[in-house]
Amino acid sequence: MPVLVMKFGGTSVATLDRIRRAAKRVGVEVAKGYDVIVIVSAMSGKTNELVGWVNETSPLYDAREYDAVVSSGENVTAGLMALTLQEMDVPARSWQGWQVPVKTTSAHSSARIEEIPPANIMAKFGEGMRVAVVAGFQGVSPEGRITTLGRGGSDTTAVAFAAAFDAERCDIYTDVDGVYTTDPRVSAKARKLDKIAFEEMLELASLGAKVLQTRSVELAMRYKVKLRVLSSFEEQSDEAGTLVCAEEEIMESNVVSGIAFSRDEAKMTLVSVADRPGIAAAIFTALSDGGVNVDMIVQNISEEGRTDMTWSCPVDQIKRAEVAIDAAKKSGELNFDDLIADTDVAKVSVVGIGMRSHTGVAAKMFQVLSNEGVNIKVITTSEIKISVLIDRKYMELAVQALHDAFELDKRA
Amino acid sequence: MPVLVMKFGGTSVATLDRIRRAAKRVGVEVAKGYDVIVIVSAMSGKTNELVGWVNETSPLYDAREYDAVVSSGENVTAGLMALTLQEMDVPARSWQGWQVPVKTTSAHSSARIEEIPPANIMAKFGEGMRVAVVAGFQGVSPEGRITTLGRGGSDTTAVAFAAAFDAERCDIYTDVDGVYTTDPRVSAKARKLDKIAFEEMLELASLGAKVLQTRSVELAMRYKVKLRVLSSFEEQSDEAGTLVCAEEEIMESNVVSGIAFSRDEAKMTLVSVADRPGIAAAIFTALSDGGVNVDMIVQNISEEGRTDMTWSCPVDQIKRAEVAIDAAKKSGELNFDDLIADTDVAKVSVVGIGMRSHTGVAAKMFQVLSNEGVNIKVITTSEIKISVLIDRKYMELAVQALHDAFELDKRA
Repeated sequence: MPVLVMKFGGTSVATLDRIRRAAKRVGVEVAKGYDVIVIVSAMSGKTNELVGWVNETSPLYDAREYDAVVSSGENVTAGLMALTLQEMDVPARSWQGWQVPVKTTSAHSSARIEEIPPANIMAKFGEGMRVAVVAGFQGVSPEGRITTLGRGGSDTTAVAFAAAFDAERCDIYTDVDGVYTTDPRVSAKARKLDKIAFEEMLELASLGAKVLQTRSVELAMRYKVKLRVLSSFEEQSDEAGTLVCAEEEIMESNVVSGIAFSRDEAKMTLVSVADRPGIAAAIFTALSDGGVNVDMIVQNISEEGRTDMTWSCPVDQIKRAEVAIDAAKKSGELNFDDLIADTDVAKVSVVGIGMRSHTGVAAKMFQVLSNEGVNIKVITTSEIKISVLIDRKYMELAVQALHDAFELDKRA
Repeated sequence: MPVLVMKFGGTSVATLDRIRRAAKRVGVEVAKGYDVIVIVSAMSGKTNELVGWVNETSPLYDAREYDAVVSSGENVTAGLMALTLQEMDVPARSWQGWQVPVKTTSAHSSARIEEIPPANIMAKFGEGMRVAVVAGFQGVSPEGRITTLGRGGSDTTAVAFAAAFDAERCDIYTDVDGVYTTDPRVSAKARKLDKIAFEEMLELASLGAKVLQTRSVELAMRYKVKLRVLSSFEEQSDEAGTLVCAEEEIMESNVVSGIAFSRDEAKMTLVSVADRPGIAAAIFTALSDGGVNVDMIVQNISEEGRTDMTWSCPVDQIKRAEVAIDAAKKSGELNFDDLIADTDVAKVSVVGIGMRSHTGVAAKMFQVLSNEGVNIKVITTSEIKISVLIDRKYMELAVQALHDAFELDKRA
């Protein structure tokens, strides 16, 4: 029988009632003849609670223990979902990551899936089981310890299963009914997209649009997994939600397809560092080794052989960055006056594959922001996106102005 | 280095502060030179929450999924305890049941430990790790699925580790400071015992004194594990708490050493069943196959070839019992008028190894209850205990009267 992967996020399984509603959706697909792999997140709030406990216990925690703790929420949902399906007379059982096994790297708390052998689950499908409920977000390292894939990792679990089982489609059920031109909570004019290209979704995901985890979109693109984002709170047709697909499948699109933003960025500046060859390498190797995900980088003009180096990174990695830079200072690799963290910033980005064939998008973006009196602190660009770091208080204003200027409320 | 096993129950790890306090106790033993195996329960309330969800989802749940869900609480505590110890610079790591592995039978939700290979943990002790934190209550079946050992199973985990690692002692930290002659909440005259024999503890445990799980005492007796029950909320000397030990190590004791009671029993009566050879076997085989733990049994005098059969079992197994008996009726194995469940009963027991050499304990017990106007519904006895089933409303009265009559407030 054809395999379908269905993933339910935290809000979609937040209560026993919602688990029941999700199970009914699964039942509909089973009735159509699919063998279904259901990937579940933890009930919403649970993972945050666990992460809070870990942080309070040990601010610079051992990531192996972090993983052992925070992976437990998904196990609960998986078991409850299997029981709910059984109550509906759908043959189902739960699987934890190590039972499948979902083999990952040893990079605890941000592990990558390396292999998902389908044999165990396929054997059960062969015996008449119709639904395999798998705890998302988790796997097992070569050393036999529990790993997690980073926040939002259940999306990646879902796409990886879709690839490993050659699934017909991977449906991501969430609390929104699709991918929007921007967050409707920030702009009332935000419009749902019927289709979006993998590349665009990738930029949106990595830029803070929290609909899908970045890694899941990368995987879907590489393995050509048809990915659909849809709401678990509405009755659904086969055309509901937003289909994330190859560029060729999209006939018409706006030059800019979406505006993304993120409040979770911090700007860090290393003040008066010696400007010598290899200094950037010294700084960013130290940060990388310390587990800091650096995004944007700016180096000031050098004065008297010294310069300031600025970068952005997730707010919750400031402490790690400070520890890494301190260690480099103590070992004599770095010499500087001060390390300043600014958390009062936000990143705003415009994204669209149309930018490849249209010029002037950047100029228009900067003009719009200038008209609103918004100062740009840092800029980065890629082939299909332009990002700026601005004062956090201007974020909503900037998003709304850009959404209007690029006419995203109108269909192409 | 000698190995010590320390087990912390749910109330001892109920908050991050309490986990820290428990970790300090562990640190004291590490400083003395022990390699320590710490067994942890779920934070108090967590397992009940999980069990509640399972019961609400599926009243006649698949026990394999029940185990997958309810075992998750211990994983959280194990990781948090390891992190807390690491923060105190004590080399520690957590282990889940399947990682050790704690090999059990496949009897889900009441599995028995079959083997705990010490190699993995001993290797880590050899590398300088000082504390192995193990999630209690759980193991892994030959089929690779998660099992649990039944409520209170972490005690059994602790004793099994003490046996497998030839530990010097197994300390059970709990919210009481030892084993009492009866529950101090029921009788203000209850007295803490310095020592109690395995056999007595076994009767007390199985009779509802919730200090230790029955199975853990059986294991300790078989493998001669020195077992100590003590409070995690007080500063402790080496002589604190109650030592559960072999009879020979106790010089003097009262004839009766304790009064146990249980409110979790139900009385079930099968009304007007055909009195023929094999009828008891038919009934109790059905109940056993249905997973019902029958305790007391009484058969009424037969009238006109029909009789009533009465038994007691845990309150939460009534539904299972009804299903099992119904099935037996439908298959034609049983024929009866009615099945009545009475949950308004309690079991009260007097226990003491001194009863082996002293007569008249039963007579005295029945006289005391009679003097108080308490009607006895069912009686069972063993070599060292006498149990009666009575109306629940008389339970406290009965316990207090028996405690006085056998002078348990006075040391032997």
